[in-house]
Amino acid sequence: MTDTLAARAAALDGADPLAGYRELFVGTDDSEVVAYLDGNSLGRPTRASADRITRFVTEQWGGRLIRGWDEEWMRLPLSIGDALGRAALGADAGQVFVGDSTTVILYKLLRAAVDARPERTEIVVDTDNFPTDRYVLQGIAAETGRTLRWIDADTASGVTPEQVAAAVGPQTAIVVLSQVAYRSGFLADVPEITRIAHDAGALVLWDLCHSVGVTDIQLDDWAVDLAAGCSYKYLNGGPGAPAFGYVRSELQPTLTQPIWGWIGSSAPFEMGPQYAPADGIRRFLSGTPAVVGMLAMQDMIALVAEAGMEQIRAKSVALTEFAIELADDLLAEHGVTIASPRDAARRGSHVTLRHPRFREVTAALWERGVIPDFRSPDGLRLGLSPLTTSFAELQAGVEAVRELLAGR
Amino acid sequence: MTDTLAARAAALDGADPLAGYRELFVGTDDSEVVAYLDGNSLGRPTRASADRITRFVTEQWGGRLIRGWDEEWMRLPLSIGDALGRAALGADAGQVFVGDSTTVILYKLLRAAVDARPERTEIVVDTDNFPTDRYVLQGIAAETGRTLRWIDADTASGVTPEQVAAAVGPQTAIVVLSQVAYRSGFLADVPEITRIAHDAGALVLWDLCHSVGVTDIQLDDWAVDLAAGCSYKYLNGGPGAPAFGYVRSELQPTLTQPIWGWIGSSAPFEMGPQYAPADGIRRFLSGTPAVVGMLAMQDMIALVAEAGMEQIRAKSVALTEFAIELADDLLAEHGVTIASPRDAARRGSHVTLRHPRFREVTAALWERGVIPDFRSPDGLRLGLSPLTTSFAELQAGVEAVRELLAGR
Repeated sequence: MTDTLAARAAALDGADPLAGYRELFVGTDDSEVVAYLDGNSLGRPTRASADRITRFVTEQWGGRLIRGWDEEWMRLPLSIGDALGRAALGADAGQVFVGDSTTVILYKLLRAAVDARPERTEIVVDTDNFPTDRYVLQGIAAETGRTLRWIDADTASGVTPEQVAAAVGPQTAIVVLSQVAYRSGFLADVPEITRIAHDAGALVLWDLCHSVGVTDIQLDDWAVDLAAGCSYKYLNGGPGAPAFGYVRSELQPTLTQPIWGWIGSSAPFEMGPQYAPADGIRRFLSGTPAVVGMLAMQDMIALVAEAGMEQIRAKSVALTEFAIELADDLLAEHGVTIASPRDAARRGSHVTLRHPRFREVTAALWERGVIPDFRSPDGLRLGLSPLTTSFAELQAGVEAVRELLAGR
Repeated sequence: MTDTLAARAAALDGADPLAGYRELFVGTDDSEVVAYLDGNSLGRPTRASADRITRFVTEQWGGRLIRGWDEEWMRLPLSIGDALGRAALGADAGQVFVGDSTTVILYKLLRAAVDARPERTEIVVDTDNFPTDRYVLQGIAAETGRTLRWIDADTASGVTPEQVAAAVGPQTAIVVLSQVAYRSGFLADVPEITRIAHDAGALVLWDLCHSVGVTDIQLDDWAVDLAAGCSYKYLNGGPGAPAFGYVRSELQPTLTQPIWGWIGSSAPFEMGPQYAPADGIRRFLSGTPAVVGMLAMQDMIALVAEAGMEQIRAKSVALTEFAIELADDLLAEHGVTIASPRDAARRGSHVTLRHPRFREVTAALWERGVIPDFRSPDGLRLGLSPLTTSFAELQAGVEAVRELLAGR
């Protein structure tokens, strides 16, 4: 069985039109790492980023010094935002910014949205949304006197349009969901749910942390209002790299975010007495742009643009299909179940397996250089990054899980 | 005159016990930069940071991958905070965190402070405080229904204890001032003003952006409540590096900041249904730590600890004294006036000169590789960073200002 599957993996790699991208990333030739299966937590650095960051410190920061702000750095939050919008979000220019953390951007955009609709008392969110989304909303509900209406998401099947239709109404200020669920990998029907929310007069915010760079996203066409996401998973921006936010053009003049900082003001270098928000997307910025943290994502965004989201999504589907095949063939007999959708159309780029022993198994895997993620209480996530994950390392990784479960 | 001053500069450099530190920074041997006089806007990279960042990308991020979070990265916001507190803030462990931007930290700490004192209706701030401080407070006042009581700061003499005493009362929630004024370089009397605020039952927040790493700071001894500052000026953390916040130990359990994120929750990886703030300083974190952005500051903090704040402050005073001497001797006859205090005890580490032509002069200086900062409408700031600025480059820089004003 193992030999057959290894041959299958080799054949899939051989036929993969994106296989050549793998060598553009640091560490893919590192023999200590047998299988890196956590691209949905932290993407690998591109080799271009390693060069860019080294040159930045000596030539830009060390050489241009303060002049770099005028020459380029001050524009990065919006120029990188535009490039990301074009490559991966289906967003025209002037609607995406980069900065802060996902948590802070969620706070700013959600406060702006809720404050703009004082007559609407409820915020709809699902119980399986990422903790930071839920916690930010609990804080906003507490401080603005709103009520959270919880959709009880089935971990396997995610949030359905029917559930959203039942939850929204004239009282709904905004619906806050993730396109891909962080545990199961369930891929929500963004255009349909967005339409349902709009029919009730509500806004929507989509968290794209686990989907940006691996799934089809058409924010403009889908008439999404707000979105946020991180850049360190499938955008390979590096640990804790700044997040991004999207605000649909027509909405921008109607929203004021609560953290009034100089970089989001209409004339930062006049340093005048009174804050006035900048026109356009810049009003959603607050503090000084996090330049060093923004460097690496630029190279991955360029690779995503070059490879094209259609091909990337096709490989993502092929990888998750193979992961499920491997789990069925190698792990089911050891009691492993699959917590992710079997329908590829409803699945992001990670597959979550369940087994009571996965906490200890993950620790043992890491020592062997097989690196998936563990999610309490019993989930093992295989995060598959289309430009860096090979079918061979996926097969080797699942084989290692089998060996550990078999007691070897 | 110029020859005499050049000789004076050489003598001062020869006698400088910290002169050896200069070669530890990138670019100090770069002949294109004749004089870097903007250390108060952006400090130079250390050579150690250049190495650290390059190694981080390939060995840590690229090699340890997600394992790096458990091994070290997750601890950085507090471990770097502790090191900074010890080296430069007079703060015991467990009171300083690193993350976000200065603007976001100001928002979080000020909202927490104001929300904790609902019966107090006023916030005291000065008209010459940095724009982001003023703007953040305008936003907080608007959303929480508080009134800002403005101290009309004299740009040259700064905010005095007498002014603060006249502004505070039983209605004051918090007093928000900068230790060193961003324009004039005025150094406020932090212990005295803090005492006055406390006598009125008010809290204080000190913005340390323009003072951390160059002036004596004893937050614990001075009983300061809250502080915030950036790391890219005299802490050489790189453009847009994360900021830091200080919350006095006893206050921590009484304050809840408004941006409820997973990293500030009591058990981030349990991902439970309800946010509960962590015990201690971690409750002031929100999103995922900005690891790449935090790397460089660690090397400068280590150098500050090694050199010692007493010696650093002594050199800072010597540099600003020499800057004033140079301005008096070379520029006064061309109509330049000094906007900074002549009393070293009331001066930070930058000296601001004023002249109606300084906007165009600064542009011409930058082309010559002499790099001060311009602050509208007529200010030229000489930001002197004790471990990197030499007396010789300061003399060469001021000489270049003289030549341009003389029309050469």
